[in-house]
Amino acid sequence: MKDFLPGLQGVAATKSSISDIDGEKGILSYRGYSLESLAFQSTFEETTLLLLDGELPTSAELHGFSQKLRENYRIKYHIREMMRHFPHTGHPMDMLQTAVSSLGMFYPGTECLTDAEACEDLNYVKNMTVNIIAQMAPLVAMWEHIRNGWDPIQPRKDLSVAKNLLYMFSGEEPDPLMSRIMDVCLILHAEHTLNASTFAALVAGSTLATPYSVISAAIGTLSGPLHGAANQRVVQMLREIGSPKRAEAWVDERLKNKEVIWGMGHREYKVKDPRAKILHGMVKQLVEDRGGELDEMFETAMKVEEVCADRLGHKGVYPNVDFYSGILYSQMGIPEDQFTALFAVARSAGWLAHWREQISDNRIYRPTQIYVGSGPREYVPMAERK
Amino acid sequence: MKDFLPGLQGVAATKSSISDIDGEKGILSYRGYSLESLAFQSTFEETTLLLLDGELPTSAELHGFSQKLRENYRIKYHIREMMRHFPHTGHPMDMLQTAVSSLGMFYPGTECLTDAEACEDLNYVKNMTVNIIAQMAPLVAMWEHIRNGWDPIQPRKDLSVAKNLLYMFSGEEPDPLMSRIMDVCLILHAEHTLNASTFAALVAGSTLATPYSVISAAIGTLSGPLHGAANQRVVQMLREIGSPKRAEAWVDERLKNKEVIWGMGHREYKVKDPRAKILHGMVKQLVEDRGGELDEMFETAMKVEEVCADRLGHKGVYPNVDFYSGILYSQMGIPEDQFTALFAVARSAGWLAHWREQISDNRIYRPTQIYVGSGPREYVPMAERK
Repeated sequence: MKDFLPGLQGVAATKSSISDIDGEKGILSYRGYSLESLAFQSTFEETTLLLLDGELPTSAELHGFSQKLRENYRIKYHIREMMRHFPHTGHPMDMLQTAVSSLGMFYPGTECLTDAEACEDLNYVKNMTVNIIAQMAPLVAMWEHIRNGWDPIQPRKDLSVAKNLLYMFSGEEPDPLMSRIMDVCLILHAEHTLNASTFAALVAGSTLATPYSVISAAIGTLSGPLHGAANQRVVQMLREIGSPKRAEAWVDERLKNKEVIWGMGHREYKVKDPRAKILHGMVKQLVEDRGGELDEMFETAMKVEEVCADRLGHKGVYPNVDFYSGILYSQMGIPEDQFTALFAVARSAGWLAHWREQISDNRIYRPTQIYVGSGPREYVPMAERK
Repeated sequence: MKDFLPGLQGVAATKSSISDIDGEKGILSYRGYSLESLAFQSTFEETTLLLLDGELPTSAELHGFSQKLRENYRIKYHIREMMRHFPHTGHPMDMLQTAVSSLGMFYPGTECLTDAEACEDLNYVKNMTVNIIAQMAPLVAMWEHIRNGWDPIQPRKDLSVAKNLLYMFSGEEPDPLMSRIMDVCLILHAEHTLNASTFAALVAGSTLATPYSVISAAIGTLSGPLHGAANQRVVQMLREIGSPKRAEAWVDERLKNKEVIWGMGHREYKVKDPRAKILHGMVKQLVEDRGGELDEMFETAMKVEEVCADRLGHKGVYPNVDFYSGILYSQMGIPEDQFTALFAVARSAGWLAHWREQISDNRIYRPTQIYVGSGPREYVPMAERK
């Protein structure tokens, strides 16, 4: 029998020059640039262009790209009307998978289905890419209003992706520190080598499906609780713990029962997740900005981190990116069930970079299976079945 | 550098007991039963249950399953209204990916997103499975009416999946031979080991995403021209050839230029695709039924087959399933751009069987990448960039 590695663990499925992880040292880099340097000096728009094109853009390139993104914030009214027919209980990830898939019908020039060559057309690729990245955040923010029975807030072309996202959620001019934190969150979640959703994008993309079909497939994959939903769980966990006083006993009880503590540990990193380090800094900044005043969830989180560092730090288990991003999104007033959708907004940059890499040197994914089923057998007519 | 096999060709990605191909002998079997025995003696409903559960059902099991399917034919009016907002130019595959994704919002009890355990609940699995398989064909038929500006035709609970599909397309009592041919087409397309769309379903399913997200991802993957669109191309090709008189010269010209002849050859089969053999028989039956009268596309197809057998038969290149299914769907009055959607209707059975197999012994897919990008480099502020 052939070798079989469940989940293809350790099997190389692609060559890629987009991002790299050094788990021993806790380094994540996009196109060779450390995540720290991008988080502190870049913007989501610039990082996206870096991921897509491979190099830091010139001022003119960045300006042109940002402009195109802003011109694509607007969502067609038939899409809004479509969304109004979704049940108000619809999960944001289901909404987003559905809405992104529908964009393939709303945008002319989506010709992959009848013309494989279209995929090799760089203008086609660039236009579709910018359109998807631009519309993700507005769709997510619109849903928050629509599901609550309100008309959505129109996007503002004078705002960055991060600011416009916050603006479309709240309808208010976004706070500069919160805007910066959102921008950093988007940068940190934009790409992370080959995970399940990115791999799904490669598989779907390898048939030369349209990028709308591809990103919709990736969103569906990210929606699974084993992949994208962890930061939502962190906040649910903190709510369950309820107060910093209860944190220590709660963590110890969970560890005793060998249960998961959400937001702790990451299979890729032996040291603290570099993204968690950056967000930890953001959390501190936010506390300072608010004159040291913390709310209970914040304090509970800090206490959970402290207890976990004591109990698990020697095993290389540290808070990961989900631990802090959940708390920060909560502080922005964003409902928990939207967190994974925000992850998808950011990750659309990485997915599309991988999609472009895939179709530029394409081979359809068609691994084999090891057949372990029944040997040949004769069909038994109904009357003779037992 | 680690080994890297583009497209994971030859790499075993799963163990499966659902279907098996013997390409040398031209045998395709579902759960050990040859496709011929199922095509001639079974129905799509029975074959679906065989694929899902592993054994031929008893009379009571089959009756119960068929009843549940029929009770699930109806599409909620909010879904219909949602579809009315799709552009009438929307491709049926984009429509189907969108609509199936939306079902995840419309059906309560879709709890994978917040409860991983739900995936292990067999009732959950069975209810979602029957719901998806039942609604695929009605959605496809509805779109044919909606995109043309008409109200869709209501499904009929007294009809099988194949008959109801034809009925919802035409609004007329379906012809018995055409119904049988549609039923056989559904059986033949229901499953085909691990191809790109089935693999996408495994990857998406491995995060414990809902089956709606999973099947939507698979539909998106199938929509690519390298995967599902071949039978549509066959009919376009036949239309281009135009008449049987022109077939020989056309084929020879294509072969001289090393261009593809759509519907010929299959990478898995060294002999004639067993599905093609069965459909070839159906074509003959249809010709007989019509008193030997053929239309021009039919005659052109027969001539193309004859010329290709002469020119390519010694290389093991024979007509595949797409060659005949395209012609047969055309005879049923179904528009070309709907063919791949019909493929998806049938394949939903196989996708869901693989999804169930995946989650019953799950491991998230996370293969590795070979990083070939830039080494560490310093961020360059905008003003210093060239």
